[in-house]
Amino acid sequence: MPQIIIKGMELDKVKAISTSLVDELQQIIGCPRDYFTIEAVVSSFIMDGQQTEISPLVEIKWFDRGQDIQDRTAAAISRHIRSSGYSHAETFFTVLENSKYYENETHY
Amino acid sequence: MPQIIIKGMELDKVKAISTSLVDELQQIIGCPRDYFTIEAVVSSFIMDGQQTEISPLVEIKWFDRGQDIQDRTAAAISRHIRSSGYSHAETFFTVLENSKYYENETHY
Amino acid sequence: MPQIIIKGMELDKVKAISTSLVDELQQIIGCPRDYFTIEAVVSSFIMDGQQTEISPLVEIKWFDRGQDIQDRTAAAISRHIRSSGYSHAETFFTVLENSKYYENETHY
Repeated sequence: MPQIIIKGMELDKVKAISTSLVDELQQIIGCPRDYFTIEAVVSSFIMDGQQTEISPLVEIKWFDRGQDIQDRTAAAISRHIRSSGYSHAETFFTVLENSKYYENETHY
Repeated sequence: MPQIIIKGMELDKVKAISTSLVDELQQIIGCPRDYFTIEAVVSSFIMDGQQTEISPLVEIKWFDRGQDIQDRTAAAISRHIRSSGYSHAETFFTVLENSKYYENETHY
Repeated sequence: MPQIIIKGMELDKVKAISTSLVDELQQIIGCPRDYFTIEAVVSSFIMDGQQTEISPLVEIKWFDRGQDIQDRTAAAISRHIRSSGYSHAETFFTVLENSKYYENETHY
């Protein structure tokens, strides 16, 4: 259920990092590989009247796993993104609550 | 203002459930029909180097209405999605705060 | 880092307001121009079986800046959107936490 939502990164580059990123996050987080989703968002970014590129911007929606695991997750994501040619990445975490997350009719 | 944000579901299937889903949610939540928005997100999901399909994943952004109404809302969404051919749906709720939600210049 | 995420507004209209909106927000918020991102989301909105238009709906993801600056930010956004021909805009704020927001490996 960690949802990795990526903006501002080319689709082919997302594909290229996807396997080794999930390999590493699976170790850090300790959850099964198929819990992860990686979403490449299709949006337009605008500045001063024109479409523009942004540095990769990543949101992780997940259940809170504490500062240490979060730090290592952000570091793994940043390292993967920078290894694919970007100089800079921003990553932020949105905490989901068990009582508000449902598989079919049942919440966690 | 309940915003129903759907990922991983075919647009035609979203259209097909949209009327009866809002009919039911209107009863559960007790708010006018035109308060709802249903958004079908255009994104690419990636796993292991390739584009992939995900099970429908639904986020509801709304003002908190308590666990019971939330449970029934999730159940209605899950039932509608599974009735359109998916075996599994995940639904989660993001709570918006009155003091941070504005109609034009005025917050709730 | 204020992320201005706009749904339901034509791309050309987003472009048309982007310069003066950031000019004004820069004054209100007191942060550098290049901290802002304006994202025009590509989604389909559905009601009663058909694709539909919605009134512009804007989410701001940012660090909390207090009610007064938030009120003035919402007012500036609403005014800009209505000046481009829409009668109504809704704007809501999602607060990001310093300890969960990273530039590369380092959180705020």
